[in-house]
Amino acid sequence: MDVAEVSFEQVLGAAKTISGVAHRTPVMTCSAIDGIAGRRLFFKCEIFQKVGAFKFRGAFNAVSQLSDEAAANGVVTHSSGNHAQALALAAKMRGVPAYIVMPSTAPTVKKAAVEGYGAEVIVCEPTLAARESTASEVQARTGATFIHPYDNDDVIAGQGTAMLELFEQAAELGTKLDAVIAPVGGGGLLAGTSIAARGLDSSIRVFAGEPVGADDAARSFQAGELIPQTGPKTIADGLLTSLGQRNWSIIRQHVEQIVTVRDDEIVSAMRLLWERAKLLVEPSSAVALAAVLSSKFDPERRAGSVGVILSGGNVDLERLPWMSNS
Amino acid sequence: MDVAEVSFEQVLGAAKTISGVAHRTPVMTCSAIDGIAGRRLFFKCEIFQKVGAFKFRGAFNAVSQLSDEAAANGVVTHSSGNHAQALALAAKMRGVPAYIVMPSTAPTVKKAAVEGYGAEVIVCEPTLAARESTASEVQARTGATFIHPYDNDDVIAGQGTAMLELFEQAAELGTKLDAVIAPVGGGGLLAGTSIAARGLDSSIRVFAGEPVGADDAARSFQAGELIPQTGPKTIADGLLTSLGQRNWSIIRQHVEQIVTVRDDEIVSAMRLLWERAKLLVEPSSAVALAAVLSSKFDPERRAGSVGVILSGGNVDLERLPWMSNS
Repeated sequence: MDVAEVSFEQVLGAAKTISGVAHRTPVMTCSAIDGIAGRRLFFKCEIFQKVGAFKFRGAFNAVSQLSDEAAANGVVTHSSGNHAQALALAAKMRGVPAYIVMPSTAPTVKKAAVEGYGAEVIVCEPTLAARESTASEVQARTGATFIHPYDNDDVIAGQGTAMLELFEQAAELGTKLDAVIAPVGGGGLLAGTSIAARGLDSSIRVFAGEPVGADDAARSFQAGELIPQTGPKTIADGLLTSLGQRNWSIIRQHVEQIVTVRDDEIVSAMRLLWERAKLLVEPSSAVALAAVLSSKFDPERRAGSVGVILSGGNVDLERLPWMSNS
Repeated sequence: MDVAEVSFEQVLGAAKTISGVAHRTPVMTCSAIDGIAGRRLFFKCEIFQKVGAFKFRGAFNAVSQLSDEAAANGVVTHSSGNHAQALALAAKMRGVPAYIVMPSTAPTVKKAAVEGYGAEVIVCEPTLAARESTASEVQARTGATFIHPYDNDDVIAGQGTAMLELFEQAAELGTKLDAVIAPVGGGGLLAGTSIAARGLDSSIRVFAGEPVGADDAARSFQAGELIPQTGPKTIADGLLTSLGQRNWSIIRQHVEQIVTVRDDEIVSAMRLLWERAKLLVEPSSAVALAAVLSSKFDPERRAGSVGVILSGGNVDLERLPWMSNS
């Protein structure tokens, strides 16, 4: 790998950049779910982050790094959802245009939210090729800077700030975390989380949860090389994309295990979080809890205190996955 | 009224009693909803309280006041839901039996939760008369102490502790609250809140939100005397009961206005809290926000900073009120 790693100092720098702008989201605990897990879980509630997902951290950090000249032409990205809203808001806060390429399959609530932040939405076919070519066209036409949803150092550094807070907040609750787990799609959150964890305390074990139906990270891990995702199929619509190059390079070094979970396990974990913890997570967020509840996770049960990053809460409230007719 | 008022000191005493046992629930803000309301709202999230509702505060305080001798025979109550769970848990924590009389119409999720806390559930017809007579029978049979869901001084004092925290938490966010609003059913939360508010700062205005379909508090206010609720009909199933005698006596002195809201306003406010703030409130909780968003609330717009008590989050997740087929 000739990709330079994002440093812990870059994560600390991102934390300064987003301070007072992004929310320091709460860490919640739930004794009922702890009882089921047989461990103490510390839920980092990025559902309460601006735009309802951790993505605001990375997007704001990346937009902040642009020169005034570059920023004036705006920013462009392609995203199935939360990064789109995040970049739209970050651009709005800096007073520059945002162009968001979205697949025609993106949930209505996410499209509406992006437009609500004043961004221009360009709809394309739901393939990676169509998304990339459409974004390139917009870039050529406007001079906007492309901000990749996850394969971007400033984005990765920004996503790592959630872990800095989680570690500190667990300590405020009297606990030193044994492990942390995040969902993995493109790998922005997981890469940032692992760099932050390593920088804070190298004894913290880093895990990921991944849907069986989009398990490129798990397969890459096994193969020892990056294997792109083709034909993903999972309810966790935020985790459909392939692992990024920078992300893979970081994750392969620092992550202990990628725990894959089936969609029925994801739905059960999501419902548990709604019903018992009153935490309105989206399916992609529930993947991390589903992984912790899996028998594959830490079978020796050495991790008594686990930080669980609940990545976002942007659910289409017209269709809930446990309802028979949805 | 010859009913002695609950004192501010009793609320402070309750705060000591529940300290370290009940959660100090977070106060959340949401700029999107602030924009709609045109005010700064501070949501006191009792959805994250033990048993998912503020009711734990009052129940635990009431059970704590019993002598060891009285407590040994257990406690009994009738409740359509959250008080039932709260009393069941409070009894379990003291290691004494709980007998819960529930109407046959109570949501399945609430019945299951009560049994999950180890209480004995006795199902009766869904009328106040049936609930009271069944509870009396249990009392006679077991010697258990009846803990009324709201018409009880220790319960009222316990419910007031949420307001103590809310005031302090708003101050930590740099804000002195101009007003506070709570939903009103039996009046336990509203009475406790108003005593706490008066004791903290007599300039805080106290409001209530009430469903049009169960508007006994509003009608009592207009008439200047307690008018019981008959034939309530509202989606806010936690607010069906009549105002209690003690509660009315307190509320009539301290509450400025009871703002009534229609079920469609309640559902809109609930959806707003779910979609924009990711707060999984039950319909009864959304009544307070619906009232703040009503044109009837503070039309002179003097209240710029309003504390809104979100009372609970025990929703039947199989049926959401905005879904066409529910």
